Amino acid sequence: MKPVMTIQEMTDFLAKVFPQIAADFEIIHMDGETVDVRMNVKERHLRPGNTVSGPSMFALADVAYYIATMARIGPEALTVTTNCSIDFMRKPAPSNMIGKARVLKLGKTLSVGDVMLYSEGMDEPVAHANLTYAIPPARK
Amino acid sequence: MKPVMTIQEMTDFLAKVFPQIAADFEIIHMDGETVDVRMNVKERHLRPGNTVSGPSMFALADVAYYIATMARIGPEALTVTTNCSIDFMRKPAPSNMIGKARVLKLGKTLSVGDVMLYSEGMDEPVAHANLTYAIPPARK
Amino acid sequence: MKPVMTIQEMTDFLAKVFPQIAADFEIIHMDGETVDVRMNVKERHLRPGNTVSGPSMFALADVAYYIATMARIGPEALTVTTNCSIDFMRKPAPSNMIGKARVLKLGKTLSVGDVMLYSEGMDEPVAHANLTYAIPPARK
Amino acid sequence: MKPVMTIQEMTDFLAKVFPQIAADFEIIHMDGETVDVRMNVKERHLRPGNTVSGPSMFALADVAYYIATMARIGPEALTVTTNCSIDFMRKPAPSNMIGKARVLKLGKTLSVGDVMLYSEGMDEPVAHANLTYAIPPARK
Repeated sequence: MKPVMTIQEMTDFLAKVFPQIAADFEIIHMDGETVDVRMNVKERHLRPGNTVSGPSMFALADVAYYIATMARIGPEALTVTTNCSIDFMRKPAPSNMIGKARVLKLGKTLSVGDVMLYSEGMDEPVAHANLTYAIPPARK
Repeated sequence: MKPVMTIQEMTDFLAKVFPQIAADFEIIHMDGETVDVRMNVKERHLRPGNTVSGPSMFALADVAYYIATMARIGPEALTVTTNCSIDFMRKPAPSNMIGKARVLKLGKTLSVGDVMLYSEGMDEPVAHANLTYAIPPARK
Repeated sequence: MKPVMTIQEMTDFLAKVFPQIAADFEIIHMDGETVDVRMNVKERHLRPGNTVSGPSMFALADVAYYIATMARIGPEALTVTTNCSIDFMRKPAPSNMIGKARVLKLGKTLSVGDVMLYSEGMDEPVAHANLTYAIPPARK
Repeated sequence: MKPVMTIQEMTDFLAKVFPQIAADFEIIHMDGETVDVRMNVKERHLRPGNTVSGPSMFALADVAYYIATMARIGPEALTVTTNCSIDFMRKPAPSNMIGKARVLKLGKTLSVGDVMLYSEGMDEPVAHANLTYAIPPARK
């Protein structure tokens, strides 16, 4: 399936709607069903024990699935997270992280899917998030 | 990865520990990482509108992930579900259902993974469940 | 807040839309924000070890939150569960169970809330479920 | 139930184990079952539209439930989140937030409970999180 935006268009859109955090994220793959996003992990994402914080992993999952939904419906800034269930499975390395998002169901009002989170260079996933986004009814 | 039990051994074990429901389920694939289970959908699993009930889908997810965990650790009947988060995405057909379970993390005390649920013959998933099982500490 | 239906009207409605299971459930309290439902636990709800099955507890949570939503919006049979996340915390007794549902947010398209599940006569909860229902857009 | 630590001891412990973020949080009530925590919302917690970001709300839920668990078992820094399911229900105001945590089940290896999140001064909850923490087996 072909995405309705290019990676460059999506990157510009994120810079506009999330100016505080867009620089932390880099889209490394995007089609109409899956998206891979790298989070550039910095000092403020870390916790003692040299590990990435839970809220930082949540942020990566949330951004990756937002992008996966926008890649299908176009730039609808008002699309909002209604639910996220995340399983933390392994301690992340203090390195960049990759979020691999997958759209499982795109309906008229809800987008449902998941994101597998990896420490870059590790084979086994660190966390697994399932997300639902509500799509604003007004879009045409 | 090789499972520690055969499909026949697992089927016999289920008949012993879940005598009320084991006949509803059939293991159609089992290795050490994934398990496919068919639920033979009967009148009592249906709801008006000719659809499969939510509790029946929950039962399939729960049994499929239980089997996936047993396939790795052996017959530990006291392994219990501690959390299940399930997204219902499409209306199921009034036909048999397939649950495809996948172990994402097998630790000493927790087994974490997911199950994708399909109406047999349909390509798109009907529901997606994420489960955590607690493994009894006493096992050797 | 006043519910838009009486307990008798709700009971009649459930008997019509869920003829297979309505007899298992009894509404013992219903206002516009909370609902208490008793599940009459029978042989088929039990598992070895004299405990109530996970799918039976899921069914109680699902029905209790369905009733809590109908109590606010009226009999919309097509309202469907989109997500349920359930934590199983204690082993239930082989007795009737009570589900105490609470509406946390009733929007135009989603109803979000939770259900605490008890074995009748026990103080501590057995399970805690969080549910989201999608409300059909066509209602006026 | 009496907590095993005072608010001052807990505050000092958080400053030691979470030096990057402890100053954002203030414990305003703590007993052995419930904990109320204020998050001092700053520029970096906000998003366009003058609202608090999802990851910031996740952080508040996570910290509040961590404190609620420590209040019962004492300062076990290695206690880690294994699951968090969060429903976002209303748009938060751009003000401080309060997280009200409640322990539902404290077992030997798992602590299970929830956190209701409020914008300070608003009556209706903004989000509802359910969390599970794994408690390290080595504690005596």
